[in-house]
Amino acid sequence: MLKLYGFNVSNYYNMVKQALLEKGVPFEEIKVYPNQEESYLEISPMGKVPCLLTEQGPLTETSVILDYLEESQPGEPLYPAQAYARAKVRELIHELVLYIELPARRCFGEVFFGGTTSAETKAEVEATLLKGVSALRRRSQFSPFIAGESFSYADIVFLHSFDLANQVAERLFQRNLFDELPGAQALMARLAERPMSQRVAVEMRAGMEEFVQLRSAKP
Amino acid sequence: MLKLYGFNVSNYYNMVKQALLEKGVPFEEIKVYPNQEESYLEISPMGKVPCLLTEQGPLTETSVILDYLEESQPGEPLYPAQAYARAKVRELIHELVLYIELPARRCFGEVFFGGTTSAETKAEVEATLLKGVSALRRRSQFSPFIAGESFSYADIVFLHSFDLANQVAERLFQRNLFDELPGAQALMARLAERPMSQRVAVEMRAGMEEFVQLRSAKP
Repeated sequence: MLKLYGFNVSNYYNMVKQALLEKGVPFEEIKVYPNQEESYLEISPMGKVPCLLTEQGPLTETSVILDYLEESQPGEPLYPAQAYARAKVRELIHELVLYIELPARRCFGEVFFGGTTSAETKAEVEATLLKGVSALRRRSQFSPFIAGESFSYADIVFLHSFDLANQVAERLFQRNLFDELPGAQALMARLAERPMSQRVAVEMRAGMEEFVQLRSAKP
Repeated sequence: MLKLYGFNVSNYYNMVKQALLEKGVPFEEIKVYPNQEESYLEISPMGKVPCLLTEQGPLTETSVILDYLEESQPGEPLYPAQAYARAKVRELIHELVLYIELPARRCFGEVFFGGTTSAETKAEVEATLLKGVSALRRRSQFSPFIAGESFSYADIVFLHSFDLANQVAERLFQRNLFDELPGAQALMARLAERPMSQRVAVEMRAGMEEFVQLRSAKP
């Protein structure tokens, strides 16, 4: 059986977890926080989560794992069948990760854990976020799903990343990113109602207290 | 015919260009530098290069374009056929881009264009690069190719990114990244000898003077 390493508060972990649940693929969850222990680096060489252990060996990097699930597992397809349409979904995922999630993540320490971020970093993050949101406005339809007619991996990535990025934008830059994307807030609400979204959210809340204690203890 | 937008000094542009050449897929090159003109944002919403214009519409993000070429075009396969092996090549590409190329890129201004980088950024970049190289040492074989037996997209990404990152590491951190990866320097030399690598390199040199003037004129 597939083994999913990580912890249920990690939004990248939850992207893979929800993909597995949506497809109905059985998997075992193995709790691990990001770490640099030799035994973990052997399967996840950056020490990150998630890591998926398959019968053939380990895989890391969320978008790589999502592609692998699509190409190797049964269940509901989460990419379109046609090559160009599939590429457009992958493009949306890259835009969400590279220009929204990862920049916002550089400010997570300040926004969620009482740390600080330099003015230089904040300026870089704000500029990238604004370009990213502007790109997303051109790209995505948000109706009924982010890439159009069908629920896809891009919806899963949006669900587990955009709210966090928006909290950064609201707190540090006094901007609501949803306001700049017509349909985005309504889509987020519809996605959150999915049974698998609710299951992931319940398990995330159950893990939150331990995670916050652990994270806040860091220098 | 496919149209490739960008300029022949961009290493991401050259990754896609070399993939097209290796596959023998005909394409037209359309020179454009990254820009925020409305007409270009319509096909490349971040204003970046490369952008591939297909008969069905535009595509951006290098790894998305590489996947699309594999899934839609004839010619030599540049991914393994088996899903797990293909995922391992994608994983290498992500590691090269996220933990080597993109961090090093944050210092390109100082190293290549007479700009400056803050001490904060340099410290972040050095830490990420060291973890990235360490991950790469665990992952990649470098013999005969970076992912093992077959020439793949990961070799193309390595060829067009690792030398630049190493120049950053040498100049700013007094480290030679090749020294930490047995076989990497020899692989780079073998890859550079490929006919298509040489063609891309010749055309890159031809475009360098104009690019450096343009880039150095920026504030």
